[in-house]
Amino acid sequence: MEHILSVDQFDRPLLLQILSRADQMRLTAERGGDNRLAGRILATVFYEPSTRTRLSFESAMMRLGGNVVSSEMAAETSSAAKGESIEDTVRIIESYADAIVFRHPVAGEISRAAAVSSIPIINGGDGPSEHPTQALIDLYTIQRELGRIDNLNVTLVGDLKYGRAPRSLAMLLTRAEGTALQFVSPPQLEMSPDVLEHLDAAGVAHTTEPDIERAVATADVVYVTRIQKERFPSQEALAEVEGAYQLTAAVARTMKSGSAIMHPLPRVDEIAPDVDELPQAAYFRQARNGVYVRMALLNMLMNRQVDLTA
Amino acid sequence: MEHILSVDQFDRPLLLQILSRADQMRLTAERGGDNRLAGRILATVFYEPSTRTRLSFESAMMRLGGNVVSSEMAAETSSAAKGESIEDTVRIIESYADAIVFRHPVAGEISRAAAVSSIPIINGGDGPSEHPTQALIDLYTIQRELGRIDNLNVTLVGDLKYGRAPRSLAMLLTRAEGTALQFVSPPQLEMSPDVLEHLDAAGVAHTTEPDIERAVATADVVYVTRIQKERFPSQEALAEVEGAYQLTAAVARTMKSGSAIMHPLPRVDEIAPDVDELPQAAYFRQARNGVYVRMALLNMLMNRQVDLTA
Amino acid sequence: MEHILSVDQFDRPLLLQILSRADQMRLTAERGGDNRLAGRILATVFYEPSTRTRLSFESAMMRLGGNVVSSEMAAETSSAAKGESIEDTVRIIESYADAIVFRHPVAGEISRAAAVSSIPIINGGDGPSEHPTQALIDLYTIQRELGRIDNLNVTLVGDLKYGRAPRSLAMLLTRAEGTALQFVSPPQLEMSPDVLEHLDAAGVAHTTEPDIERAVATADVVYVTRIQKERFPSQEALAEVEGAYQLTAAVARTMKSGSAIMHPLPRVDEIAPDVDELPQAAYFRQARNGVYVRMALLNMLMNRQVDLTA
Repeated sequence: MEHILSVDQFDRPLLLQILSRADQMRLTAERGGDNRLAGRILATVFYEPSTRTRLSFESAMMRLGGNVVSSEMAAETSSAAKGESIEDTVRIIESYADAIVFRHPVAGEISRAAAVSSIPIINGGDGPSEHPTQALIDLYTIQRELGRIDNLNVTLVGDLKYGRAPRSLAMLLTRAEGTALQFVSPPQLEMSPDVLEHLDAAGVAHTTEPDIERAVATADVVYVTRIQKERFPSQEALAEVEGAYQLTAAVARTMKSGSAIMHPLPRVDEIAPDVDELPQAAYFRQARNGVYVRMALLNMLMNRQVDLTA
Repeated sequence: MEHILSVDQFDRPLLLQILSRADQMRLTAERGGDNRLAGRILATVFYEPSTRTRLSFESAMMRLGGNVVSSEMAAETSSAAKGESIEDTVRIIESYADAIVFRHPVAGEISRAAAVSSIPIINGGDGPSEHPTQALIDLYTIQRELGRIDNLNVTLVGDLKYGRAPRSLAMLLTRAEGTALQFVSPPQLEMSPDVLEHLDAAGVAHTTEPDIERAVATADVVYVTRIQKERFPSQEALAEVEGAYQLTAAVARTMKSGSAIMHPLPRVDEIAPDVDELPQAAYFRQARNGVYVRMALLNMLMNRQVDLTA
Repeated sequence: MEHILSVDQFDRPLLLQILSRADQMRLTAERGGDNRLAGRILATVFYEPSTRTRLSFESAMMRLGGNVVSSEMAAETSSAAKGESIEDTVRIIESYADAIVFRHPVAGEISRAAAVSSIPIINGGDGPSEHPTQALIDLYTIQRELGRIDNLNVTLVGDLKYGRAPRSLAMLLTRAEGTALQFVSPPQLEMSPDVLEHLDAAGVAHTTEPDIERAVATADVVYVTRIQKERFPSQEALAEVEGAYQLTAAVARTMKSGSAIMHPLPRVDEIAPDVDELPQAAYFRQARNGVYVRMALLNMLMNRQVDLTA
């Protein structure tokens, strides 16, 4: 594992290794962190701001004793504004750091950066395309909440078209066994055909279920996402679907004991606030898991003492 | 002390303890700092930018060996722009840090954050309402400059209506004994009635003095503030008071020996530059005290080894 | 050396000392850095954003174990926007840090800051005027690539009028012996008369060479710069010179063995991408040298254990 660019690069053994290492990192963090990345520098270079993803990576790096240099407004302030290619940018920033997390609005740019980089590159989100560390966090949360990643009924609710989180999670669940997916979304926001083909090829069962109550009742995991307002083609298209779905406490209470409600956050109104009190409400634990998974990934990429074959 | 939200929360014993700890931190800083907060992370999340307050907190944290993650442009770049509540925000950022300093343009938002937080929240300024650490710095500066906080004539000069610094300092001085306050301001910028009522209830003497020369001559402390341009309702209202008062060197030289001129800074023209040379000019020392007071507060909030009852 | 403000302040012995220390810092960095600036804080305060220069300084500081506080958008977010003078600003920020790197759009402002500062101030670029650490990096790169700084044919190509990098390098090369300079630029972008006078006074040979192929053939160093779009008086003036020169691989291949192509970066199209493959292409190594030179400078300014007379 040289770079983290796409969920496609993780086969089942590597996934299981990451989940196991994230568990170790949870213990490390609960003991106050350690210094295994002391002297290392992580650069976070965000061409599209995301306070949450950036702070989560930076916190993970610091919990392992590492340092961070950061550019939150790279689109406006970096040399990209002067016409520099991302290949040139990475050849320069690799002088300043031992790994780089990029966020970029254009799909594929981060892979171009990785192609010329001598240090590890992490995709922290490239437009509507990929956000692989989020998918790993989701899978880790499923294991933490359910105790397993196999033989699960997973219901994806919301904006399945523009949301890269449900899309990536569906792709990653092809590495699990016995997954059954249910999709709940307005017709305009259905899961895109390329994902469905991928699921078919992998033999993952999937159905569309218009009724959220029915979909939720049998689910082990209910994964809700917000409407991705910023990716809609027009205000009219957006107005048609706003408020089209909400997980209320009344509906959530019908869920099985031991099941989990997840959300990549931020939430707007698609999960009612009184759901937060239910034991199934796992989304804030999911956010916390982000730090543990990113600690594991940063350590695997930067700590030369780690034997990845062990 | 779980959070720092308002000057109201500090009784006299706690204030004296903070002043004493700030003195210890001065010595610690002069010896080059220490590592008592090593491994801890402070998040600074500013929905309204303030380079000064942010850097002061960050420097204080680093002087104690701690780390910092920071969002300077949180209003534009964080999930608040996507419609997230501040309660959700704090539930996520508490995964990344061991304490959070918030600055927010809306009064009360930071208290809402604290109500759901599992880690200490510090109010780094919430609109026109409160900036409690500034008031603590002011009180510490008074003790450093005058050798005491009791039995002092304190003259507040300038924008007493929109400035939260003179307002908070007046409130905090109700914890001292024998305080006499004088207010010098244009009529449009007088201290607001709720503060006057509070002072009356606490038995603090206060007078309005239109003549700055007379007010300054008897003062132990002259606390000057700039016009808070950004909080004025109109350009016309602003034009009426601009340049309405200035502390000149000629007037400042009439002050008593051992007295102090303070200012929360930044200064525009309300203290003439040649005042800087006088021994009474304490405002740059006041800025430096900010680091010591904030070191003390961060340590009290985050260092579990500190026995707050000692 | 109290501050770093201008290339004028470096005489030949000091330059040689900096080059030697940069070499030591290269070894330090290759061994993973050290902790000689542990407990020290560098403030980077940029009134004009520059991701590259800022991250280079911050990385250098961290490689020596130091901490960084940073304001990337100081023009909008700092007290300057409220009307504060830079003298007041530095008197406050010196409470938070042990040295400050300023970038400012107005020539001379950083020197005004240094005049009142009790801690070292570094000019990280002040408008079209100076960027002294870049010039030091260029000189160090020449020594690394050529093995010497004396008796060199140096060809400066591009925007010699608005670019502060070729201007500063020309000035610094008056400290070397036997330098011969060639200038290649569109007529509108010729080296300014004050630099030519300075070169004449120092006895440095210089010629203008309209033909880039001829200029390159005899050069030890070819230093290319981009058109400084952001400093042009009008779009028309800019349109006249865009694309006026380019170093192609065909021309670059005529260069002498052991010679070096340099560029302060970012590059737009003035060096063709296929030049990158040639051994003479030194510009990415030059960027890396930036960290070593800045480590040396930060250490000289902040490490009290360093005997500058040694």
